[in-house]
Amino acid sequence: MFLTCRGSNYFDLSIKLHGRYRGKIEVIPKVPIESMGDFAVWYTPGVAGPCKAIVGNPDLSFELTCRWNMVAVVTDGSRVLGLGDIGPEAGYPVMEGKALLFKYLGGVDAIPLALRVKNVSEFISVVKALEPSFGGINLEDIASPKCFYILEELRRILEIPVWHDDQQGTALVTLAALINALRVVNKKLSEVQVAIIGAGAAGISIAKYIIIAGVKPGNIFVVDSKGILHRDRSDLKRDDPWLRWKRELAEITNSENRVGGIPEAMRGVDVVIAASRPGPGIIRKEWIKLMSDDAIVFALANPIPEIWPWEAKEAGARIVATGRSDLPNQINNSLGFPAVFRGALQVRARKITDNMCLAAAYALANYAEEKGINENYIIPSMEETEAYIREALAVARAAMEDGVARRKISLNELRDEIEKLIERPKLIMKTLISKKLI
Amino acid sequence: MFLTCRGSNYFDLSIKLHGRYRGKIEVIPKVPIESMGDFAVWYTPGVAGPCKAIVGNPDLSFELTCRWNMVAVVTDGSRVLGLGDIGPEAGYPVMEGKALLFKYLGGVDAIPLALRVKNVSEFISVVKALEPSFGGINLEDIASPKCFYILEELRRILEIPVWHDDQQGTALVTLAALINALRVVNKKLSEVQVAIIGAGAAGISIAKYIIIAGVKPGNIFVVDSKGILHRDRSDLKRDDPWLRWKRELAEITNSENRVGGIPEAMRGVDVVIAASRPGPGIIRKEWIKLMSDDAIVFALANPIPEIWPWEAKEAGARIVATGRSDLPNQINNSLGFPAVFRGALQVRARKITDNMCLAAAYALANYAEEKGINENYIIPSMEETEAYIREALAVARAAMEDGVARRKISLNELRDEIEKLIERPKLIMKTLISKKLI
Repeated sequence: MFLTCRGSNYFDLSIKLHGRYRGKIEVIPKVPIESMGDFAVWYTPGVAGPCKAIVGNPDLSFELTCRWNMVAVVTDGSRVLGLGDIGPEAGYPVMEGKALLFKYLGGVDAIPLALRVKNVSEFISVVKALEPSFGGINLEDIASPKCFYILEELRRILEIPVWHDDQQGTALVTLAALINALRVVNKKLSEVQVAIIGAGAAGISIAKYIIIAGVKPGNIFVVDSKGILHRDRSDLKRDDPWLRWKRELAEITNSENRVGGIPEAMRGVDVVIAASRPGPGIIRKEWIKLMSDDAIVFALANPIPEIWPWEAKEAGARIVATGRSDLPNQINNSLGFPAVFRGALQVRARKITDNMCLAAAYALANYAEEKGINENYIIPSMEETEAYIREALAVARAAMEDGVARRKISLNELRDEIEKLIERPKLIMKTLISKKLI
Repeated sequence: MFLTCRGSNYFDLSIKLHGRYRGKIEVIPKVPIESMGDFAVWYTPGVAGPCKAIVGNPDLSFELTCRWNMVAVVTDGSRVLGLGDIGPEAGYPVMEGKALLFKYLGGVDAIPLALRVKNVSEFISVVKALEPSFGGINLEDIASPKCFYILEELRRILEIPVWHDDQQGTALVTLAALINALRVVNKKLSEVQVAIIGAGAAGISIAKYIIIAGVKPGNIFVVDSKGILHRDRSDLKRDDPWLRWKRELAEITNSENRVGGIPEAMRGVDVVIAASRPGPGIIRKEWIKLMSDDAIVFALANPIPEIWPWEAKEAGARIVATGRSDLPNQINNSLGFPAVFRGALQVRARKITDNMCLAAAYALANYAEEKGINENYIIPSMEETEAYIREALAVARAAMEDGVARRKISLNELRDEIEKLIERPKLIMKTLISKKLI
């Protein structure tokens, strides 16, 4: 109750502060202008020089313009936070907040773009049209299952990184937390059984990436609103192309052919990862008791997790993580996207490969492990800037190894560049606050 | 020759400096962040407050987000500077330069968007899709005649200002210069004859706006590559919808039914306005001699005007203006768009009406007149910040009078707001330079 109250107070305070500042980001020159004559270099006639250089070599647009560091944060407003299909204008404050996080945490110049589009194919063609102006695309708050198709299609047709943060971002940070949780309880990815509650953007993507990381597909039990996914579920046999992603998971997971709902999926498993709907009470204490020893429970729904951590612990869970900043082990997308893009942009990557995503997860996990992990510290927090630097570095390195980097550069130089870019927005903010310009 | 040399040196210097700074603009937070906890207000969970407020009232997105001050600078790269159809990547440095000018001169947050689109209808649908994220659209460097259709259509279907700077921007600043040139020679808009050389985006739009300002259509002679436009020209009778704009002008201009080329159009007229192709030699001295007394010559081609000012003067011209910053009377689009958008955005205008455009031209002209106009000073320069403030104020006022403003506000408050926003980027730059952050 207190927490709910605090939640709605945040809303009022947030409206008030958004209104006072009239938005959260602005665009500024990053070149010196000493007199109007300088525009002869930055604009006509001099700018024809860079234009002509790029005509013969479009990749030079990453060197001679701000494009290399520009990311479009794109939504159609069809599934914003827990608010549903509220449309582009109403989704815009979230995109702008994301742009703020992109710069503040990753030194990335991000532009909020909330689109009014009629359908999936228009969404894709608009983003395709925008490609020449950006170094990367961050998709956000798009309803499932169309988000799966949009991401796949854009990754296929664009020559810049495309990322859907509600899929890959959540999966990456969840995987990092899972890696360390298993280290704490001394279990192996390749041996554990995992129940995934919720088969939306997050659930399906988490399943995909933990498989890539080494969990055996057959050891995963995914539960949607109709129960555990399995090969023979009649509703998945419908001739509906939008069922593809669930069907693919149903084919490879659940080797035991379990049927039933959440408790049947949780029986005997080592890990439960819920990304379903706000709790409490979605996961019950008695179901936690069905899990194996040293149970790991990730209850990721916001603002209220599927089960409160203290309930899960009372029922025998050893490690609990949630999406909340006021509880231990926050599984927070902001630990992922700023550094993933920092790394990808730094080497002008054409794609974000699965290896890059895995490298990011391991960099986060390893950073926390070095500091010393335990039940209440399995993943770094947003304050740990060094974690971002290492993560970005790991992503850039994996991009070079995978052959998707336009630019090759030594890891030392890379680290220097990344450090400076991550530090810059904080220095700018400090300076502008001191001059009362913020 | 010296000037040509200098031009190409600018190109090399510009490439070098663009490469050193890696672009010209960046995105920064404009809200204070003291700890990561502040994101609970700027991002989840607090941001749901502004989102929910906007759902019921989309216009609140102008109050609670940065949208109100965001302008998309959009091109398809089909006619960039004098370089032709060089594509979006190569056009991007110009869009970014424009974004720099938007902020530095007008306090406007502008985003360069160079689009890869297949055709006009895709261009229009992409910009339409972007509408919820912007307070205005500045079109740029789009080939004629498609630019006319794109502008008309977007002005019709969008509820935010749409401006094509190569049309309206050039027309506005040219009109301001013409108003004062006529004041100097003591002639009236309603009485003069005007030859317009070139019937591209600029020429056609200049014709349109000087008619709106009071020049009699019949007193205008527009020359394209086939000669003077007139009712009976057979090439304009072709069944081609793209000829519409020329045909409309052919119907109402040239009441004398002149035929021929540039010299025939210039015979006896008070004013010649050329926006055709780089000179010199496009307009000949002997043709200037055909003009009436106190001849006014605007030779706007870049980088070399259609006739050098000294040649025009030797041939009897009293006032000469060009597009160049190193010659007197620069007719410079940068005097227009930053203030037009500053004014339009300030009152959340739905459109930029012809009245707003006229008000901008008169504000510029009147400011120069107050300071004291003469043959070599008919229009303010970019250094005259007060001219921008007055121009923005005039635009905002006209928007309120025309009923296209979402926001009503007193002129005193408006002036305060506009002054602060125009001053802000210069203060930020000074501060960041002093801390070596630029």
